This record gives sequence, structure tokens and C-alpha cells, in this order.
Amino acid sequence: MTSTPLQPTARTSLRRSKERAATDRQALYDVLLDGMFCHLGVVVDGHPLVLPTAYGIDLDHSADGIMYLHGSVAARSVVAAPEQTVCVTVTHTDGLVLARSAFHHSVNYRSAVIFGVPRLVTGAEEKLHGLNRIVDHLVPGRSTAVRPPNRKELAKTSVLALSLTEASVKTRSGPANDEEEDLNLPYWTGVIPLHSVAGEPENNPDCDLLVPAHVRSRANRLGAPS
Amino acid sequence: MTSTPLQPTARTSLRRSKERAATDRQALYDVLLDGMFCHLGVVVDGHPLVLPTAYGIDLDHSADGIMYLHGSVAARSVVAAPEQTVCVTVTHTDGLVLARSAFHHSVNYRSAVIFGVPRLVTGAEEKLHGLNRIVDHLVPGRSTAVRPPNRKELAKTSVLALSLTEASVKTRSGPANDEEEDLNLPYWTGVIPLHSVAGEPENNPDCDLLVPAHVRSRANRLGAPS
Repeated sequence: MTSTPLQPTARTSLRRSKERAATDRQALYDVLLDGMFCHLGVVVDGHPLVLPTAYGIDLDHSADGIMYLHGSVAARSVVAAPEQTVCVTVTHTDGLVLARSAFHHSVNYRSAVIFGVPRLVTGAEEKLHGLNRIVDHLVPGRSTAVRPPNRKELAKTSVLALSLTEASVKTRSGPANDEEEDLNLPYWTGVIPLHSVAGEPENNPDCDLLVPAHVRSRANRLGAPS
Repeated sequence: MTSTPLQPTARTSLRRSKERAATDRQALYDVLLDGMFCHLGVVVDGHPLVLPTAYGIDLDHSADGIMYLHGSVAARSVVAAPEQTVCVTVTHTDGLVLARSAFHHSVNYRSAVIFGVPRLVTGAEEKLHGLNRIVDHLVPGRSTAVRPPNRKELAKTSVLALSLTEASVKTRSGPANDEEEDLNLPYWTGVIPLHSVAGEPENNPDCDLLVPAHVRSRANRLGAPS
């Protein structure tokens, strides 16, 4: 795969806190590969609609990489998306940053914002590929350990492909930054780390199979807070 | 506080999976009170912009309750918001639902979507109140254990008030639901639970105070996965 650095456009250039902007593609991919869900923003009837959804990533078949999204063919967000610029945001919240001053309270986070006009995937092969990338993004290896979608199920599902060309990444990490004159105030300052973790996989009541390796790996990779 | 049930409008009425819709206000408040961050969607230059941000809730001073948002007076999202309908989404992801069929894979989640035209808070008293609600939403009790914002800091900060009048709540829980004819397929099915947890609070390098009770409580309340 070849790729270009993130090319800031007017809408992806950070206007504030520019020190928090990452400009390389790997930073974008890291945020996307580490996330499980995104918030998809579309404009419907003149107002924004923001819905959480799963996504998949393919970095192997295009210069900048592709994000796959899916939804029911009847879903407002998915129906609206292919005709317009959408905004997809993936956010990791890594810690609550408690400063001595209310004003300098902050959040440690990594977020990616992607803009683009999604392409409605119509070819059967890419549609299946996109759906597999979504399932495998949530649980690597899962797409080969399930019954694949049949023709009727594929017909009920819309798949969108969004190029990862226009994007921005913003991160904050580290301790709180107070004003010089506040450093001796008698208030505790520090970070409460936040983690997204998995619990023990729970068999469906009607399933007595052992938890397979790919499910176990997924849970372990999320794991408990370090 | 008196409150009315959620009044579904065209844009908050679920078109699909109606069994996942909660229509009482308490379900909305539960999702909001349990969350820490939202995704704020606005329309800027004709396209959607979705950014993660903190929020605070006040259920005590109006019929339906208010969500407070804040940002730099220079922030695109906050500058755009008071002139238009925004969409604020709060999402909890509770589990990965792995079915025997790819098609029936799902996510256990609780999400709230709020629409409204935010009011720019201009009164000094409500502005401070709104900021305190945001800080106390992240860490209850924090607003009284910090240096309050001074006039200069308040002038740099915009606070928005969004009525919780028009909203929808959607949830999914429980095991995977496969087609009858797939129940004997030899694929593991179940749920990988997901949790947002806090780690041990980390003092800033320049702070040797003991972790105070309100910080400890916040971390404990998030706690480890049950």
C-alpha cells in the first residue's frame, strides 16, 4: 500500500490547539484500527443526524484506505449518505484530566474525523468484502466462523465505502496543565485513566460450544485495564 | 421536577427496530447520567461536523431538563450551534453480539439522540452554573474542589443550553437472535461484554496530595467490570 500524508483542507485543519493535531496517516489508521464504533453524521431534512455504528477498514486496496459502513437499506443515515458529504468521527477517551483550575480541566483522548462522499457499494463481491471487514474489525477472524450472508440478507443491507483521504486526527495525553500562579493551590490534580475493556464472553443460552480462540483473543486483546 | 414523556417527532420516531425504542424520559436521563461524553453534530458550510465533547445535565430547573455544552468561543461547532438545529448523541456500547450468521451480528448498546436549537448562555450566573454541571458530571463534587473560572476564562468560553425536549432513546440487550434454521449450525454464539472502566487515579508529577474522596469515588463508581 502506498499512502499520502493527511492533506489538511479547510475543514480538517484544526483552528485551535494545533499542537494536538497529528498529520500523518499512521496516526489516523491507529485511531481507526483501535476503535470499534464510530459516529456517522449526515444531513437529513436540513438538520444533522448523528448515529453510532460499526465500521470496517481496508488499507490494502487503495492509496488512502477505505472505511466500510453498513446499515439497513431503510436506515435514514445510510440512505442519505451516498448523496452527500458525511462526517465520521471515531473517539477514544483515555482519561479525565483534573486541573487545579476548573478552566484547565480536560480529557485525554484520540479522535479521528473523516469527511467524504461515500460510495454505495453495488458489486456483490465488494459488498460481501465490506461486510466481512466490518465483522472482522469487531472480532478478527469472525467472518470465517459464521454462516455468510445469503442473497436475501445482502439485499436488505446497504454497504458504503468512504475513502480515508480527507481526515484529521487530534489527540491529548499527559497530565493537567495549570497556570503558573495556580501551582500552589491546595487542590489535587491528576488524571483518572479510562479504559474500554471486555468481560468474559457469555455463551448464548442455547449454545454449549467452547468459546473459540478468535472470540477469546478479542476479549483478551481488549482485556482488563493495565 | 415535572416532566412529560418523550414526544416522538418525525425525526425522533424510530423507523426500524421499533421494539428498541424507549419512550419514557427516565430512560433518556439514565443514558445521559450514565455517560461522560457526547458527539455533537452541527452543519458547517453545508456539511455535517461531528465532534466529541463533554456535557452536563440539569434536571432541576426546567420541565424537560437541560444539557449544557461548552467550548472555546472560537470553536467551529460551538459557534455554529446556536443558530441551528443540532443533534447530540450519547452512546454506551455494552457488548458485541456474535450470532451464528454474519447478518445477525449486533451490538448491545444504549443511545440517546437529542435534537434542538441550543441557546447561547449569556448570563454570568447561568454560565458558571452550566460549567459547574459539566465538571460535576465528569467528576461529581469537583466544581467545589477547584479554583473557579475567572472573568477572563469565562469570556473565552461559550456555554450552550439544549433543552432535552425532543429526544429518542434506543437500546439493545440480551443474546444473539438467529434464524430458526441456523440454530444447529456449529458456530459459537454469545456476547462479549464491553465496559468503560477507570484505572487508579494518577497524581500530576507536581502534586503530592492524597487522592481526594470525590476523585476516588468517581474512579470507584466506574470501577472494574462486574
